[in-house]
Amino acid sequence: MVRKTVRTRVRRFDATGEVTARADKLAGEEPLEVQLDGDQFTVTMRTPGNDVELVAGFLLSEAVITSKADIVTIDFASGLDPDGSRNYNVARVELVPGVWNREQYGARQVYTSSACGICGTASIESVRKETRHPVGPPEPLISPRAVLGLPDALREQQQLFTATGGVHAAAVFAVADDGAEAELLAVREDVGRHNAVDKVLGWALLEDRLPLRRTVLQVSGRASFELVQKAAMAGITVLSAVSAPSGLAVDLGRDTGVTVIGFNRGTTFNAYSHPSRIFGAADDGQ
Amino acid sequence: MVRKTVRTRVRRFDATGEVTARADKLAGEEPLEVQLDGDQFTVTMRTPGNDVELVAGFLLSEAVITSKADIVTIDFASGLDPDGSRNYNVARVELVPGVWNREQYGARQVYTSSACGICGTASIESVRKETRHPVGPPEPLISPRAVLGLPDALREQQQLFTATGGVHAAAVFAVADDGAEAELLAVREDVGRHNAVDKVLGWALLEDRLPLRRTVLQVSGRASFELVQKAAMAGITVLSAVSAPSGLAVDLGRDTGVTVIGFNRGTTFNAYSHPSRIFGAADDGQ
Repeated sequence: MVRKTVRTRVRRFDATGEVTARADKLAGEEPLEVQLDGDQFTVTMRTPGNDVELVAGFLLSEAVITSKADIVTIDFASGLDPDGSRNYNVARVELVPGVWNREQYGARQVYTSSACGICGTASIESVRKETRHPVGPPEPLISPRAVLGLPDALREQQQLFTATGGVHAAAVFAVADDGAEAELLAVREDVGRHNAVDKVLGWALLEDRLPLRRTVLQVSGRASFELVQKAAMAGITVLSAVSAPSGLAVDLGRDTGVTVIGFNRGTTFNAYSHPSRIFGAADDGQ
Repeated sequence: MVRKTVRTRVRRFDATGEVTARADKLAGEEPLEVQLDGDQFTVTMRTPGNDVELVAGFLLSEAVITSKADIVTIDFASGLDPDGSRNYNVARVELVPGVWNREQYGARQVYTSSACGICGTASIESVRKETRHPVGPPEPLISPRAVLGLPDALREQQQLFTATGGVHAAAVFAVADDGAEAELLAVREDVGRHNAVDKVLGWALLEDRLPLRRTVLQVSGRASFELVQKAAMAGITVLSAVSAPSGLAVDLGRDTGVTVIGFNRGTTFNAYSHPSRIFGAADDGQ
């Protein structure tokens, strides 16, 4: 049984000692094992739902695949609960022969949260080399006002967050030709920040929309190294976060061409890399 | 060079199109590779600092070690930047012979974020079996007022958050005998939620303070399955989160004996498992 939310009993306390018993909805969180050509590839804790997209997006992020055409099947038939019902917690992926081989992937072990090597420099180098969907040139793309509207546009779509208060969200927006507006293409939610982004990327891959040029990926939390990496692997132009980026996220944004925006909340936002994509910024090649 | 924060240039935009250039501080984020008895064990993206604690806490969380006595050395000498300076990004761990062997660990592959098996039930079973620091009985421990004070007490200690706005924090508090107060024992920050908790756990392990009975672990974000797992591995009595728990986090709290508290913000909080630890709750064995 796939559960985006689960119901639970809860007791609410206040400082006076008053206690109220009530029912509450929580975000679902279950493990998903991804098997690649017969071998275990990764396990991630995720909110069930959009699992085909999650698998496809994760494999894109990890530079295993670059398009829908690389996938033969993604099969969820083997994950079973103790009562024999299908739980969709095991995804068996069969790729087109030659797309991927474990030996070539080699010593670069795969972790749920990272495809990086051992030092920041090597990681950045590796991402820059591996993406086959390069981000476009750092030309003016979008107005500050359009950027400032994205967090609210995302928030309006966060059904699971509204129900549970406990999930992250990511949405990709297409920027209009005049840069004054951005149209929502897809929004996904998950208990894991990375998974929400992978689901959006998987949607794009399965819809044959890669590279996602002239788009903004808006996320509900921080901009970590790994989220910039995922944006770069899909050719996304701008990554906008409600909270702060990390230092390495900004370095990777500069090197891959992704405009990294942080603290996009309320009346201002900060651009940390390639600010020239925002109307009004001088193009200093940063 | 170990960098908890990095300085960067940034442009701040507002809706009128005004742009201001300024300097900004960002949280450091660098990969840390952990090698165990000569083999690569994991790579995690973390904020540099307290790395010995991070490694020790991660190995405790993963059920590889249970006390300081299991560790022979944790050596950071081999991680070097291109210029030859030490970067502390590689930790070589030598354990006491017999503490751990890869074969016994077996098919249970290790991921940065999870020690879980393939289904929630198996994971919970595995955590319950593996902790050698069981949580104490579900007896009344702490007053609602003391619980409500913890997020502010944590926030006051978040130096890196104050500087960057971009990190998670975890702190462990010892509950006074009368349950009316809780004393801060250790607080740690990191770009990764799990790492902040692992650093606190590592501190406790290295100080020979396990199990951490009669304590509350306060975290700045959500209570995921993995954070409850980490609390249980250290014998922590109560996990309190500012945001929501997931459904699986609550299940694991119920099964391992950890009291899971969520939405601890302002004037109320919710107790999802073992509410009997909070003064004023009827003990219904939940």
